[in-house]
Amino acid sequence: MAKIAVIPGDGIGKEVVNEGVKVLEYLNSTYELGLSFKEFDLGAARYLKYGELVPDNVLNELETFDAIFLGAVGDPAVEPGILEKGILLKLRFYFDQYVNLRPVKLYNDRFSPLKGKGVDEINFTVVRENTEGLYAGIGGFLKKDTPDEIATQEMIASRKGVDRILKYAFEYARKTGGKLTVSDKSNVLTYAHNLWQRAFKAMAQEYSDVETNHYLIDAITMKMVRNPEIFDVIVTCNLFGDIITDLGAELQGGMGLAVSGNINPDTVSMFEPVHGSAPDIAGQNIANPLATILAAGMIVEYLGHEELSAMVDQAVQSSIDNNKVTPDMGGELSTSEVGNHLVKVLKELK
Amino acid sequence: MAKIAVIPGDGIGKEVVNEGVKVLEYLNSTYELGLSFKEFDLGAARYLKYGELVPDNVLNELETFDAIFLGAVGDPAVEPGILEKGILLKLRFYFDQYVNLRPVKLYNDRFSPLKGKGVDEINFTVVRENTEGLYAGIGGFLKKDTPDEIATQEMIASRKGVDRILKYAFEYARKTGGKLTVSDKSNVLTYAHNLWQRAFKAMAQEYSDVETNHYLIDAITMKMVRNPEIFDVIVTCNLFGDIITDLGAELQGGMGLAVSGNINPDTVSMFEPVHGSAPDIAGQNIANPLATILAAGMIVEYLGHEELSAMVDQAVQSSIDNNKVTPDMGGELSTSEVGNHLVKVLKELK
Ligand SMILES: CC(C)[C@H](C(=O)O)[C@@H](O)C(=O)O
Ligand SMILES: CC(C)[C@H](C(=O)O)[C@@H](O)C(=O)O
Repeated sequence: MAKIAVIPGDGIGKEVVNEGVKVLEYLNSTYELGLSFKEFDLGAARYLKYGELVPDNVLNELETFDAIFLGAVGDPAVEPGILEKGILLKLRFYFDQYVNLRPVKLYNDRFSPLKGKGVDEINFTVVRENTEGLYAGIGGFLKKDTPDEIATQEMIASRKGVDRILKYAFEYARKTGGKLTVSDKSNVLTYAHNLWQRAFKAMAQEYSDVETNHYLIDAITMKMVRNPEIFDVIVTCNLFGDIITDLGAELQGGMGLAVSGNINPDTVSMFEPVHGSAPDIAGQNIANPLATILAAGMIVEYLGHEELSAMVDQAVQSSIDNNKVTPDMGGELSTSEVGNHLVKVLKELK
Repeated sequence: MAKIAVIPGDGIGKEVVNEGVKVLEYLNSTYELGLSFKEFDLGAARYLKYGELVPDNVLNELETFDAIFLGAVGDPAVEPGILEKGILLKLRFYFDQYVNLRPVKLYNDRFSPLKGKGVDEINFTVVRENTEGLYAGIGGFLKKDTPDEIATQEMIASRKGVDRILKYAFEYARKTGGKLTVSDKSNVLTYAHNLWQRAFKAMAQEYSDVETNHYLIDAITMKMVRNPEIFDVIVTCNLFGDIITDLGAELQGGMGLAVSGNINPDTVSMFEPVHGSAPDIAGQNIANPLATILAAGMIVEYLGHEELSAMVDQAVQSSIDNNKVTPDMGGELSTSEVGNHLVKVLKELK
């Protein structure tokens, strides 16, 4: 038994989540997973009507769920940042979802933007710290709106916060048999990232079976473009994880495939596509639902059904290889047709 | 008359600066520029022998120069960060070199790591703020070396500091007839980058002839890989500039061509290749001197000889097109042979 809270959100969020739920419902009925779903109307409409982002009673109710399935939030009628901070970051922080797991996987050579790099070369996972760093939201203004204005913004790294994400990353690397790369800017951030360095070195001794290395954040962007094949698992701070997973999304063929798990095994975890609400293409049934379908795969994996998650991945692979995709990936299917196709492939894979 | 302080530094720094000075000396004698050179032995050797990074008397002397020509600092015998912070960042901050100008230019299609992108698509300039942001060096530790340790690191944005870099960027875009893109993380950094946003919007009104747009830092890394052709001039904060110029360096064919001008027209400006001291290949006469030679070109441009700078650029273009380059770029020349070849081409271009 597992309760899934569905938050379609705004724009294409609703359309892609439909397809994700379609896949989950198929798996649920076919494999008797005991999933139940409840939809929550958080997003721009509610905010514009009632001024509400995530009201306390909703937070309390969400706490009783096993996982949250989020589409995307963001709307042109709302000042940028309000919905992202008020809903997405709010949930990440409220449920202390300290792991942001983001696989970067190229499914088909034709989508690689890099010369000479194919599916074997681009396949790694970013483990992003998700609750501190520059996302702490701490800072202020002095002499605001004057020529002498000064703004500060605090990056916070706690040993506890860094240790727990490193532990997750080391365990993940050990489990998957991969090398663990840490990325920071320790040569300049001599406080916050000095702590990261010390914590990483200490833990590397405990996990002496896991091979490790280190790249500065500037250097790792180069390596990602030149030698993506050297990466298995990358662990990094909140902001750097944000940056390199967008770069990674492009390397795997674009935002249409980038998926994000916001995980805390002890509270409520949340799964989402990395892309936004894309208001410019909303309502046209052309949005690419594959990232959201992969998020559905992450949900079943998180709930303990690894083999079903692998099957979803295989179905995505198949729909890409057979060009059963939306126009952004060069296909001719609509959003809902991709979802239907996925279910069809899953039936065949049974 | 102009006095150039030459700081070869460590590792390949010495080798590449030799070739840069070779080019400058040729231009100096041929076009009677009235340049004089003096070498300063800052770097690992001095630090290891005397514990000195940049002593006060050297700072005072450097103040009397028109430009600094820096190779690279960094040595395996010295803890990472010490020389970079103690020399490179020290000089940037001491001379308040608030503009870090970093062109990203692909010289030859064969060096593009991106499928389907050529020299016409990759040609823009990053204007990086160089004196504040997360480079302020402010922060601290609480309960250091305990499980409860907390480290903080301060990002500082002053309106004055942001305004002056924006002004430089707007002027640069106007002069070169390009579009100006600003990149920040204003949806999360609601203090420091809110200031950036307000300052940018205000200045965009003054420069209404300059076309502008905005990308979040995560999104801009995607755009750089997918649509680098949309960029002319990008202005951004210190850390983000650091990150995207390394990515840019890769897009233009690798660190061997990435050049950096640290500029304050009112004090002493400093020019350098973006690459480091590369101790692993030092002393073998194989380091690629082209970035340093382009830095020499930036120096003459800075001193008012734009046509000579353009000629250096042309000579670099020619040596690349004719494969007169070092092995890292697929050529067979040594470091000094590339320098000699450059001078030869410059003679032909006269
Ligand atoms: C929307 C934004 C706040 C968010 C972030 O910065 O984490 C997004 O970019 C992401 O990567 O999930
Ligand atoms: C060496 C380091 C301190 C420096 C920086 O971070 O600015 C370098 O990466 C650069 O880009 O010039």
